[in-house]
Amino acid sequence: MNIAPDLDSSQAEAVPERGKKDNSELTVYPEDYSLLTDLYQLTMAACYAGESLDERKACFELFVRRLPEGFGYLIAMGLAQALEYLEQFRFSSEQIAALQATGIFSEAPERFWSLLATGRFTGDVWAVQEGTAVFANEPLLRVEAPLWQAQIVETYLLNTINYQTLVATRAARLRDVAGPQATLLEFGTRRAFSPQASLWAARAALAAGLDATSNVLAALKLGRKPAGTMAHALVMALGAIHGSEGQAFAAFHHYFPGATLLIDTYDALAAARLLAYQLQAGEIELRGVRLDSGDLVALSREIRSILPGIPIFASGDLDEWEIARLQAEGACIDGYGLGTKLVTGSPVNGVYKLVEIEGIPVMKKSVGKETYPGRKQIFRRFYQNQMQADRLGLAAESPTDDCEQPLLQLVMKDGKRLQPPEPLEAMRERTAINVASLPSETRRLSEPQQPPVELSKELQALLQQMQIS
Amino acid sequence: MNIAPDLDSSQAEAVPERGKKDNSELTVYPEDYSLLTDLYQLTMAACYAGESLDERKACFELFVRRLPEGFGYLIAMGLAQALEYLEQFRFSSEQIAALQATGIFSEAPERFWSLLATGRFTGDVWAVQEGTAVFANEPLLRVEAPLWQAQIVETYLLNTINYQTLVATRAARLRDVAGPQATLLEFGTRRAFSPQASLWAARAALAAGLDATSNVLAALKLGRKPAGTMAHALVMALGAIHGSEGQAFAAFHHYFPGATLLIDTYDALAAARLLAYQLQAGEIELRGVRLDSGDLVALSREIRSILPGIPIFASGDLDEWEIARLQAEGACIDGYGLGTKLVTGSPVNGVYKLVEIEGIPVMKKSVGKETYPGRKQIFRRFYQNQMQADRLGLAAESPTDDCEQPLLQLVMKDGKRLQPPEPLEAMRERTAINVASLPSETRRLSEPQQPPVELSKELQALLQQMQIS
Repeated sequence: MNIAPDLDSSQAEAVPERGKKDNSELTVYPEDYSLLTDLYQLTMAACYAGESLDERKACFELFVRRLPEGFGYLIAMGLAQALEYLEQFRFSSEQIAALQATGIFSEAPERFWSLLATGRFTGDVWAVQEGTAVFANEPLLRVEAPLWQAQIVETYLLNTINYQTLVATRAARLRDVAGPQATLLEFGTRRAFSPQASLWAARAALAAGLDATSNVLAALKLGRKPAGTMAHALVMALGAIHGSEGQAFAAFHHYFPGATLLIDTYDALAAARLLAYQLQAGEIELRGVRLDSGDLVALSREIRSILPGIPIFASGDLDEWEIARLQAEGACIDGYGLGTKLVTGSPVNGVYKLVEIEGIPVMKKSVGKETYPGRKQIFRRFYQNQMQADRLGLAAESPTDDCEQPLLQLVMKDGKRLQPPEPLEAMRERTAINVASLPSETRRLSEPQQPPVELSKELQALLQQMQIS
Repeated sequence: MNIAPDLDSSQAEAVPERGKKDNSELTVYPEDYSLLTDLYQLTMAACYAGESLDERKACFELFVRRLPEGFGYLIAMGLAQALEYLEQFRFSSEQIAALQATGIFSEAPERFWSLLATGRFTGDVWAVQEGTAVFANEPLLRVEAPLWQAQIVETYLLNTINYQTLVATRAARLRDVAGPQATLLEFGTRRAFSPQASLWAARAALAAGLDATSNVLAALKLGRKPAGTMAHALVMALGAIHGSEGQAFAAFHHYFPGATLLIDTYDALAAARLLAYQLQAGEIELRGVRLDSGDLVALSREIRSILPGIPIFASGDLDEWEIARLQAEGACIDGYGLGTKLVTGSPVNGVYKLVEIEGIPVMKKSVGKETYPGRKQIFRRFYQNQMQADRLGLAAESPTDDCEQPLLQLVMKDGKRLQPPEPLEAMRERTAINVASLPSETRRLSEPQQPPVELSKELQALLQQMQIS
């Protein structure tokens, strides 16, 4: 049987061409975003429209069922892009025509098409601020909107928040391990999963604790200076023509005086000795050297003795565990370039679940995928700036006392953002404060434990009532 | 020390605003792509320009040093986007002004700016066709171009080819394990690392063996019909209002007659029995049911007996190993939805290395990161359509006999593509033929072995000569 759900056997057939549809044209334009959704969101919306349920008030919450392995917390990130998407949510007549041409919607009610043609996102959004630490089963975001809108936006909201939360969490852990003085640079563009992923990764990394990105476009879009050193290719290309690594260094310094030099193309120690000689002779200035290979502990220690006072940068498949190991073994490294293991890997598996419809709390009961019913709020209890515990309660509940803070805030009302996007620095500061507030067993790399998250009495009562019914 | 390589201590300072630079505006437009590169590519290009080396003919090759863990082969993918990028490669006056405003290039030679202002990509590209199986140290692509151009394009080329090759390889393995009759659907959009990643993943997945994608935008851009079923939210929302799961199914079928139904929101077996009753009574048609949770082996077998002849689809964190396990344990599953484990995870770590400059072969000698010098060609030996071995030789070598095929072809000459982009079907067919040609120990999931890749005598001689020098 080679058939696909919801489609007749022609599912592999091409949809008739509508203008230029070259398979290489996979650029995403903001005006396309509303179609960047799973087909079932649209078929479900059509069904809601036909049943006159499309305007019913629905509440969906976005959360993770469990933290990624080896993580004790998540740093929420991606809200700005999520809200931007919601503000721009609309379907053009070309998009509607394209949907109609698929043939999938031939029995869809007329009301579905008028919803798409005139609809905007008109709902409210509650969310934790970017840079906030969250844990399993805690909503990062809640959408309260007419059912059809809240349904269609699921895919994009998960896409932006899942990925940026992953990168921000890693960046926060890297900063926590490396310490406040280390220079942490985002070098992941070549390994990021698409050009846009490299931009989002750079944003999330900078917002959660890294110092700079090598991605020129990302840096300029974010109003930051890009960072970088040099590659082996320069040493090889100039060396092949000019005759030596030293001449390649001199040429590079002519245009970028004092620039950090990559010294491991041939023999890092020999290169370091040459530079030490030139420094002593007053021939050069030097703001750093970079190592991209070899035994970083032994090499960095030798180079520190050859080039005292010169910052040493390391790169090459580094992550928080490797930085911890280098530190424990006494490496002399002042800065790290982070790439592959910052911007790729296993995702944050956020989900987006219906928790209430027309004021009626609902819950999913599938085996192993149960959800908590109702609109919820996270109440975080602090004592002397240290987080003690979270209480997951219903949105209508209040803090029990002044030590509890509700984390979800109203950030969009009737489809309009209530605040302009925050600067990166504000998110970075919030991330640092949040990480510093966590228990040490939550921050540690080895078998971290998430802090206690208890259910409020009201939520427990609702849960019990619904499990019985 | 909190300093960044190549920057003075102001690296964390904002670059002065140039018009609207809102941190939420991270859309990538094709006209931005030339700045989607690492800073060091531009500083190196400036250095080449200053040294009058920018026009020297450079050859870079893109390859992986080792296959990702658990993989016996890679399926090359992403060439169409790489060539599209090279054809559009240029810098606008706004981009040049933005670079100048960073202050990083204050000592850069005037020639650098004139290169950027007037330069295009004028080089040649050799590549294996999309859908071709490749192994460690084999070039997927070679750029032969003026040094400054070949250098700057590195980051983007790696970005597109690394990611699409990963997804295509996974898709090929999934198809190989699931068999030609299974329906394989790409459901990864919500977990993909940015909206653009979801489009590229859909393309690579369809080009390498999957049947359809749930991503509406991707499907329409690729000229395909999107696929999908329904979500638990529909059952919960309609159920909460209409009163039962069965009424939710009926409502959905009213607009999508016969559509595949998701039956595990509450009790999959009870739902299947209801549908069986309705089918026998002739009240409904049904093209499939989907399970997203629970014991898929036991459930699918029971459902097959309750609903004989109705296709059963499974989803939920599936990958090739899980499909193999389900098959081995006798699950009755006709189609699979693949998401997280298809579109995220550890990357393909392609690298892009200088192999020749002005006709002089070069190689990198860093410990553990050695490269093979010179412009190379892959000669693949076949016997009765089965791959026997690869011989990695120099580009100037010829096949030894008719059983050897050179895999790298000239695909771009003087900056112009030689062929229009291929249809997805051609790549999909090539992928299937390539996978079928591989030895069984290369295709197996458990400790796969890559086929023998030998170095030609000429390449060995060059390597030896350069290791001595």
